[in-house]
Amino acid sequence: MLNSAPKYVSKKHSELSDILAPVSSELAILEDKLAENLSGNNPVLNNIILYIIQAGGKRLRPAVSFLFAKALNKGYLSSNHFQLGQAVELIHTATLIHDDVIDETKIRRKKLTVNNKWNDKAAIIAGDYLLAKSLNKLASVKNFSVIEIFANIMGEICEGEVQQNSQNYQFVSLEEYIEKSKRKTANLFVAGAQSAAILTQNVDNLIVKAAREYALNFGIAFQIVDDILNFTATEDELGKPIGIDLRDGILTAPVLFALDEYEEKEDFTLRTLINREFNEKGDFDTAIDLIFRTNGIVKARQLANYYVDLAIKSLDIIEDSSYKNSLTELASYIIERKF
Amino acid sequence: MLNSAPKYVSKKHSELSDILAPVSSELAILEDKLAENLSGNNPVLNNIILYIIQAGGKRLRPAVSFLFAKALNKGYLSSNHFQLGQAVELIHTATLIHDDVIDETKIRRKKLTVNNKWNDKAAIIAGDYLLAKSLNKLASVKNFSVIEIFANIMGEICEGEVQQNSQNYQFVSLEEYIEKSKRKTANLFVAGAQSAAILTQNVDNLIVKAAREYALNFGIAFQIVDDILNFTATEDELGKPIGIDLRDGILTAPVLFALDEYEEKEDFTLRTLINREFNEKGDFDTAIDLIFRTNGIVKARQLANYYVDLAIKSLDIIEDSSYKNSLTELASYIIERKF
Repeated sequence: MLNSAPKYVSKKHSELSDILAPVSSELAILEDKLAENLSGNNPVLNNIILYIIQAGGKRLRPAVSFLFAKALNKGYLSSNHFQLGQAVELIHTATLIHDDVIDETKIRRKKLTVNNKWNDKAAIIAGDYLLAKSLNKLASVKNFSVIEIFANIMGEICEGEVQQNSQNYQFVSLEEYIEKSKRKTANLFVAGAQSAAILTQNVDNLIVKAAREYALNFGIAFQIVDDILNFTATEDELGKPIGIDLRDGILTAPVLFALDEYEEKEDFTLRTLINREFNEKGDFDTAIDLIFRTNGIVKARQLANYYVDLAIKSLDIIEDSSYKNSLTELASYIIERKF
Repeated sequence: MLNSAPKYVSKKHSELSDILAPVSSELAILEDKLAENLSGNNPVLNNIILYIIQAGGKRLRPAVSFLFAKALNKGYLSSNHFQLGQAVELIHTATLIHDDVIDETKIRRKKLTVNNKWNDKAAIIAGDYLLAKSLNKLASVKNFSVIEIFANIMGEICEGEVQQNSQNYQFVSLEEYIEKSKRKTANLFVAGAQSAAILTQNVDNLIVKAAREYALNFGIAFQIVDDILNFTATEDELGKPIGIDLRDGILTAPVLFALDEYEEKEDFTLRTLINREFNEKGDFDTAIDLIFRTNGIVKARQLANYYVDLAIKSLDIIEDSSYKNSLTELASYIIERKF
């Protein structure tokens, strides 16, 4: 299925926990630290924060940061890196909470979303509170470059979100789709990885650039795979209806490739269904069916592979280690993941 | 009307523009800089930001910061202070936008709110974007204490908001009310004034503390007056219905004092109306009437005066200047303001 299988991968279907073994103890400490980010003064806010932290998540953003930190400093992780790991996960969590209000999502990771279990008010404030907490962590790192990186990417994440919202049911180009994926998704991986390198002593600029390149391409691939799973995973795995993004008017890689195929054959059925925003009975199911008849999913996967390869290639200048190996395997893992 | 008229005030009913004359050129520059905080990449976001900045506002938070900066450094304002002024106003604007979503406010400053003119989605993202932009300004100041101050108060602002939401229709104590006002309102004045002092060279710790004290007490008084105006201003001046906070279950100073008066006379009518959340016909109008029959408003004004006096007194250790004079007059002005 992979048209350009990454050359560095030894094991094929690795478990995520195996891949992240070299940072497992650090991720366990991170988990405790995340749960400590409670409001000292407000029990309601405490309950929300505990709920959302305990809802879990793969903690991929801190994992990537930690792997780079250890790869670049002979397996040593500084307290600054722990603060960075928390900041990146807290920002990620805050954006999820706000996104769920924006998209009126009811279920995430098989648990009720904050806006559903509490209400929109609670979710907006809880998100803002986690952003404030992440700023506390960033401030404690005492590195202006790091704060600037995060300030910039936080603005870009918002831009990506608005871009997506303002392009509903619009036939965006593949370039626009990739640009939005960079802004919305890759950015936070980039901020985490680049900052991890910056916070490691005596690290060359080329290494910082490599960390950035890895995270950028990894993040884009991650988003493309997310968009594929939106069609191919089961509703139970997704925790949301199949093709929900398309129904909401968000045209992702599989749809864009499918549209291209039909355009070449001068078949405009899919385009028409999207143009009229699926407002006639059966429109949406027909659209899903039409997409599955093309190579849209396969081409989207090839595109994800292209970015995974770029990510892995950017690691070339980094010294071999179990941590570097994990970064390589992690990039392949995100292609193979089922949800 | 004022039971303890501030002793330092020379002119009585000054116009705000007169009081702020010593920083008027700086505030004009700030206005231009605020409008420059546009998204380079997204026209939709640009429109929202321009709209909200051009909706104006008194810019009191940067004004207080600028007055302290100039009072402490012989009338000189550094570029860092301009960044600080923008940061504090951008955070204020972001919290207003998010508050309007939370409170479903339709009109502010006689203009449609962002959630009303666009929608909740747009408002949540625009608020997040302005927070990101404020972080850019703070990062550029390159002072870790300042970033830490803002990280802390941003968390506390959220706590204050949740506290208010979780105490709807509850008979909070005056202490809890003041504590919430500190968190929700005074905090941002504090962060601005304290940071302005910190960013001024060769400023003694006692001066930093004085700036903090002024802003804290000024901010509390400002909130109390806001809560009074919620009852005494006209609907046209307020741009929202009279007593809207009470209707939403937020018990502020005038209501708390009124309740006290009735409790002493063992008259529990007002308490009962609030307890049943005004759910019977005429309840709310009766409650407003009952409040106006007490000294609730007068006592609330006395409380605001108490904090204004504390604010002015904290300026004692600061050298006399036109800037210090403006800080004194500004504190008196907020008591007299009509809306």
